[in-house]
Parts: sequence; structure tokens; C-alpha cells
Amino acid sequence: MDPRSARVIADLRELAALTTDERGAQRVAWGPIWRKTRAWFADKLREIGVEPELDPAANMWGTVPGQSPRCLIIGSHLDSVPGGGWLDGCLGVIAGLEVLRAAKAAGGPPALTLKVVDWADEEGARFGRSLVGSSASAGTLQPEAELAHLVDRAGVRMVDALAENGVSFDDLRAAQAYLQAQQPAAYLELHIEQGPVLEELNEPVGVVLGTMGVERHMLRFVGQAAHSGAAPLHLRKDAFLAAAEFALACRDISTRCSGSEPKTRVVATCGVVKVEPNFITAVPGATEISIDMRALDAGVLAQMFAEAQAASKVAAARHLVEVQWTRVWDIPPRLFDPTLLGFVRESVREVVGRAPELPSGPLHDAAEMVPLMPTAMVFAQSSPGVSHTRIEDTPEPALDASIQAFLRTVDKTVAHYGAGGPAA
Amino acid sequence: MDPRSARVIADLRELAALTTDERGAQRVAWGPIWRKTRAWFADKLREIGVEPELDPAANMWGTVPGQSPRCLIIGSHLDSVPGGGWLDGCLGVIAGLEVLRAAKAAGGPPALTLKVVDWADEEGARFGRSLVGSSASAGTLQPEAELAHLVDRAGVRMVDALAENGVSFDDLRAAQAYLQAQQPAAYLELHIEQGPVLEELNEPVGVVLGTMGVERHMLRFVGQAAHSGAAPLHLRKDAFLAAAEFALACRDISTRCSGSEPKTRVVATCGVVKVEPNFITAVPGATEISIDMRALDAGVLAQMFAEAQAASKVAAARHLVEVQWTRVWDIPPRLFDPTLLGFVRESVREVVGRAPELPSGPLHDAAEMVPLMPTAMVFAQSSPGVSHTRIEDTPEPALDASIQAFLRTVDKTVAHYGAGGPAA
Repeated sequence: MDPRSARVIADLRELAALTTDERGAQRVAWGPIWRKTRAWFADKLREIGVEPELDPAANMWGTVPGQSPRCLIIGSHLDSVPGGGWLDGCLGVIAGLEVLRAAKAAGGPPALTLKVVDWADEEGARFGRSLVGSSASAGTLQPEAELAHLVDRAGVRMVDALAENGVSFDDLRAAQAYLQAQQPAAYLELHIEQGPVLEELNEPVGVVLGTMGVERHMLRFVGQAAHSGAAPLHLRKDAFLAAAEFALACRDISTRCSGSEPKTRVVATCGVVKVEPNFITAVPGATEISIDMRALDAGVLAQMFAEAQAASKVAAARHLVEVQWTRVWDIPPRLFDPTLLGFVRESVREVVGRAPELPSGPLHDAAEMVPLMPTAMVFAQSSPGVSHTRIEDTPEPALDASIQAFLRTVDKTVAHYGAGGPAA
Repeated sequence: MDPRSARVIADLRELAALTTDERGAQRVAWGPIWRKTRAWFADKLREIGVEPELDPAANMWGTVPGQSPRCLIIGSHLDSVPGGGWLDGCLGVIAGLEVLRAAKAAGGPPALTLKVVDWADEEGARFGRSLVGSSASAGTLQPEAELAHLVDRAGVRMVDALAENGVSFDDLRAAQAYLQAQQPAAYLELHIEQGPVLEELNEPVGVVLGTMGVERHMLRFVGQAAHSGAAPLHLRKDAFLAAAEFALACRDISTRCSGSEPKTRVVATCGVVKVEPNFITAVPGATEISIDMRALDAGVLAQMFAEAQAASKVAAARHLVEVQWTRVWDIPPRLFDPTLLGFVRESVREVVGRAPELPSGPLHDAAEMVPLMPTAMVFAQSSPGVSHTRIEDTPEPALDASIQAFLRTVDKTVAHYGAGGPAA
């Protein structure tokens, strides 16, 4: 194993031992184990002679000043879902620590200022809004509208949990200026895939083309509740059957809109289903169902959404019910920078001989950086291909390869932007 | 309007005024308003010179002794669901009261002993087990196995609610001997349809052929939860899509097995759906779904059940998930007595000129009597064709016609069994 990979893995193991119980990682943002995690990370930065800094949104930064004040930001997140995995987020932050460690060890200043950032609350596990720190820094978070009403399962308001960590809504709004003042030249992130694509391809490392756009909606089908024995089929208005037909139609739409390669695949998921009155002897009078559609191509996503809307109307008409859509959330596809993608491809190919490409279905902090600066990501294989569970893992050879490919990408990026590359 | 119908309707209105609030009828079995209802009914019996009697299962009986000790039982239930209708159950009991009133007014003993019974807890609204009193009397209730674990929403155990009304499990077991001692010759019940069939046919009264058999099961589809963005379609094991496909297949099965007439119609309903983990960003890893299939023909019901089982396996295989069935409850079709059906047909035809036939999809106390004695039912039109709601109703002319047809059926039955008809 590469000695730099070995250092990264050793740090990850140390952090896991400190913050994991029998149910998995417990580094939920804004809580005590998360604060312990960050105290550990701050000590790790100090060990290499870097003084950690918190920006107004509680993102934790470490900096090695370079010949140029312009910086390469290497970021990800140390927070986890409850019972999460040991690599989700941490891999990228600790890889960034290794970049700073090597730069300090090299003696002279790097061609470009180097920064590592641990974004606060990427997961949104406690309050439901993900990408909190990175979206605050990107200026896309609207604290009053998006956070003021949020409460955790114990009844604690997000505003109070933020205050406990020294963060106000005004602070969140101030994070954007802090990021701009860093003079960012580029952003790179290494992350575990969180899915089975690289595992199925038997590839240890992947070139991430961007994060898929998302259309997320709730539908409410409304018919008429009736007695399961008394209501003849032809007089029913069964809201659940309409929802069932819609869900299967969305599966068909996504199958039809998917290409054969990982990069042209799309997905559609009905994850929430709520039937009313939900009695064993009642024809469902109403059914709420969610749809989450994702694609890397904005045109394909728009087509999927239009077809899903049409399918909901067909299903509603067939079962004599009404349907209403409520938009929950959406984000356009965030395509990564062609120059950086070139560096990622080269690096992955240098390490493993191939450069498989795939989009990211899950969102990442990197998605928030795309509108602001050249951005790219490297994926490490998930095996098993599952996420947000303590059994999340990457086989050690794949972990080694992904770290090597990422560190090579960093070197190429520094060389490019530090050598009179494009202005910020 | 027929004066006897007018008396029945006046009594029903009086009872509704006493036991209905703005949400509907509140005569839930074993509670205070139900006890008030029965005190009112006991007074009504005493007004006509009949002393009410409670059997061990708390079914309330009134008797007019006849020339023969053998009896015609006229039964239904005064209990309601919370927020129920004014006619569901009460119509049949109050029609029975009118039969006894007329017999008392006639002077001499009727050819057959006449009994009215208000079965306890037909609805099962509070504890979930319906037909409590009538199944205890029929000997088909197993109190320990079926009732001992039942608890209402407030946490009150059924055994304690029964004790509050002076009923023990031993009492419930004793009810069968009480019924046998009555020497029953036949059972008749008048009930509101609780569905839209007669309304659609524009028929005020219906000849009920029997109660449909019921196959009621819970299915559990188990796949693998996954991230809605990270899991490619072809690697998913989406338990909800399998359940959705199953529900639509059951709809197709029931459509295919249905005849064109009301009496050959069948139904299938998926009323309960529970998705896990039920997150908007999670492919469902498990889904529970109920199926309730009903048909008047036992062979057709068996075919529907077999086809549903096969469909569940096809759906599970298509979505790469497993499926398990758990039987919840079943009852075979309970076909009514041909001789009594003949009297019902004649009576309905005499009153309205036609005799439309239909099965009952909902169960009734009459279903418990079928194995014990010749049994039949008359339906009054529901308009609107809904049930278990305060807007349940029967237009007054239809109510009049149904009461007249029922009273004629009683007369024909008494004449038949009282005049040396078949032995009990």
C-alpha cells in the first residue's frame, strides 16, 4: 500500500474508534460526538502545524499558504447519519488533511494555497436539511425560510441546536463572504460512492461526472373511502390503486429514459406512501406518495418529470380519482469542470489503468461549489454497495487506489492553477 | 306511508336524537351511550308488555310467546361505529320491535314464538373483533384466543370493558347453550345495504342471497432499502413496487372473476399499506399490504385467492424481493335458506313489483346464524351508498318499502313454520 494512503486509512481508523458504537458511526452534526470529532480533527491539524479556523457557518478550515493567495479547496464532511459508516464524508476530509500534511512536510510553500474544509451538517440527519454548511457558504441557503421551522425528534429547534454551537442565522448568511474572501481557484472532493455501480463494474475508483439533478415531489391522490365488501369495483374511487399505477409508470419512465452506461442512467423512486384511512376493510380514500427523479442530463430530467405528470393524470383518470402535486425540492444537474475532469481521468488511469465514469445520484457538498468554481470529485468503490449503515465499506486495495488517484488529481490541479492557470 | 313503517321510523328518529352528536351516531358497544341505548330499548319493550332479557353474552332479547315454543328470531344490532349512521343495525332491531308490538296488539299468541334480539358488539369498533355477541351465541367465538389480547385506543383491555358490562369469557361461552334453548326455527334480519348497488339499480329494497366469503391476509414484501440516488434501477429490490404490482393484479383478478350481475360480482381490496423505511430518499426495503377478497361463490373465492397468491410471486420475482403471506381471517360464503329466500322474493315483489337480488359484501350477524337455522335478510337501499358515516341514509319511500317487505317476510315465515313446517 502507498504510504500516504496508509496514513489516511490510519487516521480514519482512529476517528472511527473514537466515534463509532455497535450501531455504527454517531457523528451527527451539532451534537456532542460531532464536537468531539472536530476537536480530534482540530488536534490533527495542529499536529502538522496548521491552526484550525471556523467560518461563520461552523465549517472548519485548515490552510497551508502557497505562493499564490488563490486556493485549492479540498472538502467533505465529518458528520454522519446515526449508525452511519466510517468512510462517508470522513474519507474526503482526511485525504485533505494528508494533502496539507505533505505540503507542510515539503518545506517551501505550494504553488497554490491549499485548504481543507470540513463542511458542517452535510447529512441533515437531525433536522432534515442537508448541505447546511456548504450551501451557506455558497449563498444558496435561506435560513429563515428553510431552517426556522425545523425541529428534531426530541423537539429541539434547529435554531437552538445552532446556537448551542455558536451559530446564528446571521452567521449562516455571513458564510458566503468568508468563502469569497478565500479566493478559491478550484474544489476537489473524494467520497465513497454510496452505491453499487463501481462494485458491479469491479472498478476501485470512479471519475464522477457531476451530481444528478433532482425533482422531488409529493402527490396526493383523492378518491372516496368505501367498505371493502360493500363497494362494487366499478363504483370505486380507489386512491391507492392510482398511486400504485403511478409508481409503476415512474419505474417504466425511468427504465425508458436510462441509457446503457452508468453515466446515462437515471432513477425514479417512490419512497413515501401513506394510505388513508389505512383500514384492512376500507377502500383507500386518499393516498400520498412521493416521487424523487434524478438524471445527470437536464433535458432528460425535464422529460421524465413531464412524463410522470402525465402518468399521474392517466392513473387518476383510470381510477376516477383526483391528483395534486406539491413540489418538495429540486436542484438542477451540477456538471463538473472539464479541465478538472481531465485531471481526474488521467489520475485514475495512472493508478488503475482505466477511468470509469459515473454520475453521482446522491448530492455532495461539491454540488454547492459547482456554480462558484471549477469542481470535481473522485469516488471510491462501495462494497457492499450500500450507504448510511455501519456495514458501509471500501475494500482496502480500492481505498488505497482511490486515495492515490485523488492525491494525483490534487497535484495536477495545483500544477495547473499555480502555474498561471485561468484567473479565479 | 304504511302506518307500521311510520312507527318504526318514529322510533328510529327518537333513538337517533338520543344517541347522535354532530359527528354521527355514538352507540359504541360496551360504552355509556350504548348502555343508554339499551336502557331506551328495554323501556320500549316494556311499553308493549315485553320484559327484556340479557343472555350471558349481553345480547338483549324480547319475546312474545306463541302457540309453538319454536321461535322466529328477528335480530340486528343497536351498537354503531363512532360517528356512524342512524340506520346501520338499528333498522333491523326496531323492525323486530314492531313485529312484537303488532303481535301483542293482535291479542292471541302468534303461531310461532317471536323474538327480537339486539346482538352485542356487532361492529367491533372499539376492540376490532366484530360479531361478538352473535358469534358467541353461534359457538364460533373463542374468547381466550380472539379477545384476551385486545385493547382499545385508550389502553383499556376488552376483558375489562366486558367485565364493566357484567360479561366474562365464561359467560361468552355460555351463550351458545342459551341460544339452543330458544328452539330457533328461523332467523330474519333487515339491514341497510351499506353500499351503492341498490341505489345504482334505482331499487328501494333488495333480496340478499347470502354473505360473501372472505379471504383476508397480510403480505410482507421484503427487498433491500437503498439510497434513491445511488441505487441503479437494475440493482434495486424495491418492495413497494412489488406490492403495487400485486395490488393492481388483484384488481385485475377481481375484475376477471366478476360476473355482470350484482349477485356474481366479487371484490378485492388492498386497504392497508405500510412502507419501510418510508423516507423520501429511500428505495422501500419492505412493504406490508393487506388483501381482502370476497365472493358469494366459494369456488370463485378459492380461485381468486389462488390467483392472488400466484400474482404475489410473479410481482416478487419481477422486483427481486421475497413475499410472505399471513392469514388474518377468513369465513366461507354463507348462503341464505332457499325457502326463506322465496318468502323474501315474494314479499319484495308484492311491495315494489320487482325482486332484485344481491349478495352482501359486508358481514352481518345473520352470517353467524346460517349454520344453525334457516336464515335470510332484506336490504334497504343506501343513498348515498356509503357506510359508517353520519351521512348514511335511506330515502323515506325506500325505508317504508323495505320495512313493509320485511314485515311481509315475517308473516310468511311465521305462517310457514307455525303451520307444521319443518322441525327445528
